[in-house]
Amino acid sequence: MLLKTESLTHIFTSNPELYFYMPLLYVLWQDGEINPLERRLVEELMQNQPWMDEKKKESILLLIDNSQAPDLRMLQSWKEEIQKILPKDPGHETLLSLGARLANYHMNQKFPAYDTPELVWQIGLDILGKESIYHFYKGHPTITGKQKTLGSFDIQSMQSILDGHHAGLIEQLKALLENNQFRYKYDGNIDKYREKVLDWSKILASKGYGSLAYPEAYSGKNDMDAYFQVMETLSLHDLSLVIKFGVQFGLWGMSIYFLGTEKHHKKYLENIGSMELPGCFAMTETHHGSNVKGIETTATYHHDSHSFIIHTPHRQARKEYIGNAACHGQMATVFAQLMIDGQCFGVNAFIVPLRNKDGVLHTGVEIEDCGRKMGLNGVDNGLISFNNVEIPKENMLDRFASVDESGRFQSPIASEKRRFFTMLGTLVGGRIGIPRSALSAVKSGLNIAIRYGDKRRQFGPEGGEEVPILNYRMHQRRLMPLLARTYAHHFALRYLTHRFLHRKEEEMQEIEALAAGMKAVVTWHCTQSLQECREACGGKGYLSENRIDALKNDTDVYTTFEGDNVVLMQLVAKSRLSDFKKNFSDITLFTMTGYLADKAMTVLSEKNPFIVRNTQESHLLDPEFHLAAFRYRETDILTSAARRLKRLMEGGLDSFDAMNVCQHHLINVGRAYIDRIVLEQFLEVVEKTPNQECRNVLKKLCQLYALYEIESNATWYLEQGYIDGVKSKAIRKMVNQLCWEIRQDAVPLVDAFGISNVLLNAEIVSS
Amino acid sequence: MLLKTESLTHIFTSNPELYFYMPLLYVLWQDGEINPLERRLVEELMQNQPWMDEKKKESILLLIDNSQAPDLRMLQSWKEEIQKILPKDPGHETLLSLGARLANYHMNQKFPAYDTPELVWQIGLDILGKESIYHFYKGHPTITGKQKTLGSFDIQSMQSILDGHHAGLIEQLKALLENNQFRYKYDGNIDKYREKVLDWSKILASKGYGSLAYPEAYSGKNDMDAYFQVMETLSLHDLSLVIKFGVQFGLWGMSIYFLGTEKHHKKYLENIGSMELPGCFAMTETHHGSNVKGIETTATYHHDSHSFIIHTPHRQARKEYIGNAACHGQMATVFAQLMIDGQCFGVNAFIVPLRNKDGVLHTGVEIEDCGRKMGLNGVDNGLISFNNVEIPKENMLDRFASVDESGRFQSPIASEKRRFFTMLGTLVGGRIGIPRSALSAVKSGLNIAIRYGDKRRQFGPEGGEEVPILNYRMHQRRLMPLLARTYAHHFALRYLTHRFLHRKEEEMQEIEALAAGMKAVVTWHCTQSLQECREACGGKGYLSENRIDALKNDTDVYTTFEGDNVVLMQLVAKSRLSDFKKNFSDITLFTMTGYLADKAMTVLSEKNPFIVRNTQESHLLDPEFHLAAFRYRETDILTSAARRLKRLMEGGLDSFDAMNVCQHHLINVGRAYIDRIVLEQFLEVVEKTPNQECRNVLKKLCQLYALYEIESNATWYLEQGYIDGVKSKAIRKMVNQLCWEIRQDAVPLVDAFGISNVLLNAEIVSS
Repeated sequence: MLLKTESLTHIFTSNPELYFYMPLLYVLWQDGEINPLERRLVEELMQNQPWMDEKKKESILLLIDNSQAPDLRMLQSWKEEIQKILPKDPGHETLLSLGARLANYHMNQKFPAYDTPELVWQIGLDILGKESIYHFYKGHPTITGKQKTLGSFDIQSMQSILDGHHAGLIEQLKALLENNQFRYKYDGNIDKYREKVLDWSKILASKGYGSLAYPEAYSGKNDMDAYFQVMETLSLHDLSLVIKFGVQFGLWGMSIYFLGTEKHHKKYLENIGSMELPGCFAMTETHHGSNVKGIETTATYHHDSHSFIIHTPHRQARKEYIGNAACHGQMATVFAQLMIDGQCFGVNAFIVPLRNKDGVLHTGVEIEDCGRKMGLNGVDNGLISFNNVEIPKENMLDRFASVDESGRFQSPIASEKRRFFTMLGTLVGGRIGIPRSALSAVKSGLNIAIRYGDKRRQFGPEGGEEVPILNYRMHQRRLMPLLARTYAHHFALRYLTHRFLHRKEEEMQEIEALAAGMKAVVTWHCTQSLQECREACGGKGYLSENRIDALKNDTDVYTTFEGDNVVLMQLVAKSRLSDFKKNFSDITLFTMTGYLADKAMTVLSEKNPFIVRNTQESHLLDPEFHLAAFRYRETDILTSAARRLKRLMEGGLDSFDAMNVCQHHLINVGRAYIDRIVLEQFLEVVEKTPNQECRNVLKKLCQLYALYEIESNATWYLEQGYIDGVKSKAIRKMVNQLCWEIRQDAVPLVDAFGISNVLLNAEIVSS
Repeated sequence: MLLKTESLTHIFTSNPELYFYMPLLYVLWQDGEINPLERRLVEELMQNQPWMDEKKKESILLLIDNSQAPDLRMLQSWKEEIQKILPKDPGHETLLSLGARLANYHMNQKFPAYDTPELVWQIGLDILGKESIYHFYKGHPTITGKQKTLGSFDIQSMQSILDGHHAGLIEQLKALLENNQFRYKYDGNIDKYREKVLDWSKILASKGYGSLAYPEAYSGKNDMDAYFQVMETLSLHDLSLVIKFGVQFGLWGMSIYFLGTEKHHKKYLENIGSMELPGCFAMTETHHGSNVKGIETTATYHHDSHSFIIHTPHRQARKEYIGNAACHGQMATVFAQLMIDGQCFGVNAFIVPLRNKDGVLHTGVEIEDCGRKMGLNGVDNGLISFNNVEIPKENMLDRFASVDESGRFQSPIASEKRRFFTMLGTLVGGRIGIPRSALSAVKSGLNIAIRYGDKRRQFGPEGGEEVPILNYRMHQRRLMPLLARTYAHHFALRYLTHRFLHRKEEEMQEIEALAAGMKAVVTWHCTQSLQECREACGGKGYLSENRIDALKNDTDVYTTFEGDNVVLMQLVAKSRLSDFKKNFSDITLFTMTGYLADKAMTVLSEKNPFIVRNTQESHLLDPEFHLAAFRYRETDILTSAARRLKRLMEGGLDSFDAMNVCQHHLINVGRAYIDRIVLEQFLEVVEKTPNQECRNVLKKLCQLYALYEIESNATWYLEQGYIDGVKSKAIRKMVNQLCWEIRQDAVPLVDAFGISNVLLNAEIVSS
């Protein structure tokens, strides 16, 4: 629809007062047409200008006629016209005040326009507010545009708080990993990758990292704490290496150490620590992953030869996903049902040779490669099948069970169930190493995504500079709560490690539940965070050169191995229910009901209408409120789950069915328990941090962590009447606000993770 | 702690009445120790048995002494003892009734025990309820164990409903894809993979699939509808192929078709459809992805030579992620800022040759390979840089803008902004093809995960068979709502396609918003679902042989390309706000406020205390309730967003800042809009389905879809007072119940997707 530019231009030159409308008309024509609302605005505006006569009105109507839209060149000339009278500082200018200036300029006298600002609100979002005048300016400052990284604390001090007493070990190991020997670009060839990871493992072993947890007698340092730290720090480099390392020195070595006795330690530990003797941990079978008790591999005792025959009864009973099995493992700790004289004595562990030093499989052993996986392709997972493989009696790992000289089963633990859990309990370390590794991966991911978000610019205000994407509220909401939770989990994992290292016998059940729960919660956090990081980096996040794909894919199985998270959370719930039961062991059912009523009374005071509706900032940020809310959730979900199970079973339901009906509820029992522990630990760290700047930012992270978790469970809190709708909304607003504030410290906060660009190995942040 | 078995056994043989306690004691000793609560139970039980004298009590106390725990052999002998008197049918037996039977057997007379069942409740979950007697049985039927696939409808009929009028095309294409030519195992070598995908594309082109949407004059069938169906069906096979196909025939071909004019069609379309002329769609630049308007590549018009010079001003303005660029593309549609005589005329499109048929790059063109990616490694993405590349004037795609003979810019659309969006609007088809492809990937993933869950067994009741994992409530909760939403999205995408194909000019803005929103919502659903499928398949889900890794990784970028989802959702929100504004174009601000008050009154009637607390099943399952809830959410979020923006801007905030403050809110505006459309479409399909069995199961899926979305937004509904806590809980329970019911149809429901095992290509379900 082209038009006669000249005749339209004539309107202004012949009636210079009409320049008053030019800025408004310029903006209205930006989308190429005048809609009815816009037309109405112009009409009403004209009615409020007493100096407008009918002829002038007709001229203006010509200028808003969709059949005679001004063309590009005309609009451009209007813009140039307006720019002549543009004040340097936009100040409080509006389209109409600019119009008045323009008319004034052309008339050489004070222009008699009457400003009618209330009308402006009706013409819609596009030209609402003062920013429509930015069409004529080049720059355009906004609050969103101005936000940037400030940094309110000393990064090195924060890193010291995170690293704790292992700072020296961490630095030393990072220096090794930054070495050229550890540079490698995966090209899709998994054979090469596996050999590279084996080489790396040997380097680590040669430096003594492999045997750290073993006794000094076997070249170790008896330092389990350091072993966990190594798992965590290695995870900044390559996760296949972490798993290979964990399989060899953790699963394989520790099974010898914890399930075996001195004769086994003497014979194997030193060679395991030095990587002379690569080995496997063969527990999982195709048909029995989580349900280890159901494995079907047998170890049948033969009285005559004093030996065991290890046998795989069928294809689905093969050992599956076994790390180190496909290529490098020479021996394995194999879990099997012990059979003596036709009677089964449950799951026990045996050392079974797989292949010789040249890689030739022993007779009766068949191994199939698990092939390509979603991630961790530097680990050689395999399927192992045993066809009546004979091993000597001494190969039974006999700390908790043995066969005596007369061929009778012996154990210091009478109950098979108890023995089974004692045996598995010694392996709980894996449930500490894995979440610590997962959290390292999250730290790498957040470091990449947050630093990229800080420098990547996209979109901006009309006529203004593009804005760093980390300044956008949604982007902050995607990443800041995850950053806060990462700090929270870091301290909670430190606590878990400490509890495990200083455990007493009677605390084991609690610590096992804690480890199982932390493993599940942290690895879920890992999957969620890395997915978010991938999306937050857009197309760049999809390129392998930026490493988020590897971080995500390598850790994806963390929610599955060392115990499927859903199964683990049920174990946590059962442990909590059984704890709950113990607390009531000296009162009857009736006094217990009384206790619950008391509890309900305490809660009632927390639920008074003032608190339930309290939206004051000081209250919302108060750690007392957070802790009370977390504890209330934990206690209430636990007691209601117990009551519900009891009711269902009293109603005649089988306990298995009752547990199934409540399964969703039980997962929440576990989750609420872990969340409370995490918050308590974070609060304690905040309180004990002497450096004030660090304490301030940690406090803010802790507030964000707490409110984000409350927000994530807002449905539940609202259902309980623990918070009211107004408070729920205020919490959401406060989460947004904290995200906005923490964004300014976000880059220093990820820098404090102490990950060099060499280790990060991501083009978008290093280039 | 070994012990003297003989002396303990003596207790029973010398006091046969005491056999009464044997079953209970057997169960209590299962965990290897007697805890205080269990001890208390036994003591109270003894007090209620008048026949017990002090000596007998002492004997029993010996039997619950932790320092003299019975050993395995003894427990085994107890079990065998108990099994002698075990009734065939467990009926209402308890541990105590079994004890009475046993004592009776040994005493040869009626045993005088007094049953005191209420005590049983105090001894904790492990032995609560009747199932403790299953310790002595081999089998053990439970409700959980009995659940299985039944199938209440005809799979073929359901498939016909899903396939619709394209059933023939789908069958034909699937038959082609099942052909051996399309079998391929990715071995990590991306060069080979890319060549394979190119070969596949050529096969498809040779069968006419590539040119389906082009005019008949250029060997096409003028059938855009069929083109979308091909994108969807191809996605059952390999997603790299889908993207390669989409780049060549969709992006490259359609840009020629829609942005070019007849001279371009004649010259190129036929060769594009036959894959003779592989090409690219070069829009995105490193520094400008979502913000296309900001791209920096220039096309400068030269009057003398009547040509354009295409130039990349700096490294960050290179065209990035361009499919077909790294290896195969010979030409590209390049988007660049048109410059004439130093003036910029905005983004326009130009055909630029890249390399000759032998793959040799033309002078001035530099291409770098994007390298390995998280997925889609069969597509050769590249970075393109132009160093003053000259192209003839006719290479401008001149449907919406051109340069005339005298070198002046001409366009039928005066507004640059409007022209830009009109140009992009023609490419909206990509936002239909992508979600349709994504949903196919979800269907494959759910097919694998649900069929695996149906046959994979793990854990079970005490002494009973292991149970299919799909019988567990959490497993159902993870997969059934996603299955329901997949059906819902399927029909909504069919609706979107229909609207797009039959669009009128004035509907374009609405349809663009709908496509943008559906693209975002469906691709988010895709990421979530495939992640869930991965985890639901445990270790098996991690192996590449089961394909979930490829499905997940290939589609992960779907949330990013064709418009980042977060950005798209804001476009949807802006479109909704502008629609909202239009609806009020003939009323003033004051009458609008009045309208909102009216609206609030309507809502008040929905919010009456009876409805807000109504937890009746018939109400919760009522589509009227669902639709009202969805519509209420949509309207309320939209009006509150409009009010909030207005308030912020009236308060002096720049509109850019105001939009940023409300960003989280705006995403929800878009989401609520799309959810409502999806529900409406699903309801319509249910209503119009003639086959009653199919209708019944679709109805149930629709109920689950609706309640699951309401549950997912329960916080918001509770905050608004639209539902009360009791109703929110009832909804959660109903979601669980529907998951439980649909599980029985779940396998037939994924079978109705019509994906053969050959196409699925997943070991765990085909072997």
